Amino acid sequence: MKYVKVGFFQFAPTFGEIERNVEYVIERLSPVEADVIVLPELFSTGYQFVSREEVEALSEDIPHGYTSHQLTELCREKGFYLVAGMAERSAGKVFNSAALFGPDGHIVTYRKTHLFFEEKLWFEPGDTGFLVFDIGDARLGLMVCFDWFFPESARTLAMMGADILCHPSNLVLPYCPDAMPVRCLENRVFAITCNRTGFEERGGKERLAFIGKSEVVSPEGKILMRAFDGDEEIAIVDIDPMVARNKQLNRYNDLFKDRRPEMYGWK
Amino acid sequence: MKYVKVGFFQFAPTFGEIERNVEYVIERLSPVEADVIVLPELFSTGYQFVSREEVEALSEDIPHGYTSHQLTELCREKGFYLVAGMAERSAGKVFNSAALFGPDGHIVTYRKTHLFFEEKLWFEPGDTGFLVFDIGDARLGLMVCFDWFFPESARTLAMMGADILCHPSNLVLPYCPDAMPVRCLENRVFAITCNRTGFEERGGKERLAFIGKSEVVSPEGKILMRAFDGDEEIAIVDIDPMVARNKQLNRYNDLFKDRRPEMYGWK
Repeated sequence: MKYVKVGFFQFAPTFGEIERNVEYVIERLSPVEADVIVLPELFSTGYQFVSREEVEALSEDIPHGYTSHQLTELCREKGFYLVAGMAERSAGKVFNSAALFGPDGHIVTYRKTHLFFEEKLWFEPGDTGFLVFDIGDARLGLMVCFDWFFPESARTLAMMGADILCHPSNLVLPYCPDAMPVRCLENRVFAITCNRTGFEERGGKERLAFIGKSEVVSPEGKILMRAFDGDEEIAIVDIDPMVARNKQLNRYNDLFKDRRPEMYGWK
Repeated sequence: MKYVKVGFFQFAPTFGEIERNVEYVIERLSPVEADVIVLPELFSTGYQFVSREEVEALSEDIPHGYTSHQLTELCREKGFYLVAGMAERSAGKVFNSAALFGPDGHIVTYRKTHLFFEEKLWFEPGDTGFLVFDIGDARLGLMVCFDWFFPESARTLAMMGADILCHPSNLVLPYCPDAMPVRCLENRVFAITCNRTGFEERGGKERLAFIGKSEVVSPEGKILMRAFDGDEEIAIVDIDPMVARNKQLNRYNDLFKDRRPEMYGWK
């Protein structure tokens, strides 16, 4: 059994101040010993955009932009993997993305499939599909915030072989923290949901309160660690990702082999 | 807005005593005013079979067997709809089924898609697929116990148009009562989970403790009513099934229209 140290950095990014947010992440993560760390959705920009111009000004190329460069350096130095929610600019389009960086640099970028609320005004719907990457000791699956609401997201990642759902989030609805145990249980995977804290109220828009409660959940649906609502928190927990490879619920039931796609009329 | 009275009868069937169980249901439901009532899985036979012969001896034709006849009479007299979990015998096969009866007699029979544990020894996997029936004031979707574990079950029913998941159960694992709010939330449907209470320990097999906690859940994932662990309980609540026809989470997100099947790689 080989344990892997996984966790999250829950904090409150400052809107629009990319350098400040990125430098803060580097400062806070530099002393941390871990293998996989998940950051919040849109961690470097903040969340509540008020215009398309603003999104374009704050979004960056991945992996050639400033944030990617800084995170790549951090991962090189620390030898860990980071999943970071970022506003990605690519060929004139902007996406709400989750980028995976490792000790050897940028690996893959997932573009959020299910956009929430006004994100539909600012971002293109993701065009990458769900992505899983094998880091050797575990297979990481990428999803972003509202993707959790659709059972198809976690199911797709689990069936692609993900052991750990890496889930940068900016949650404002109350449901996700108590729903992720169901996502983990039904797919027998781990999940790291990294939410942010704090508030945003910009350009006369409604005040958004982010609910914190970042968490690491086991394939048995157990919450191994959960942050509080409003506190900044770095949490790291040892898990054995191989537990997620066994889909057997009991000696008669395997959750994947028991699926009966011919009975599911909803593709 | 037209309210519909829906609920469940949570109790402890006595193993093998079909007439006793059926007569008890009739006695207890006769004074009840309701539109839709769900009974537990295998309510007339009990759960823990020890041989195929036993299952065959206790299973019945639907709608021509004794239990169907009695429930049909009850529904005629009371003018309500009943969803009853029953061991169904058909052309030499036995199924773990949920039959829907109404004021005009038997309507449809759903055969459990996902068999749990030793049920695989006794029953054939369901061959009907998921079923939805429109009773006029609501569309009822049928699923049985362990089907809940697979998000595909509730999703299929919701996409077929179900407003209310009618869910006869014999739960022995702890997860379902806290997971049904997620099933309802992600599909914006109601659910009536009717579990049984009591214990069974037959033929040297392990003792099964049924966890009760039958419940009615709303499309917002709210538990409108939940029974206790071990108590017999008839619970009826007024709901407006039309709430389930609106899949809009906010002004930008419709949970069904926002699905992106081309991104789901797991049919």
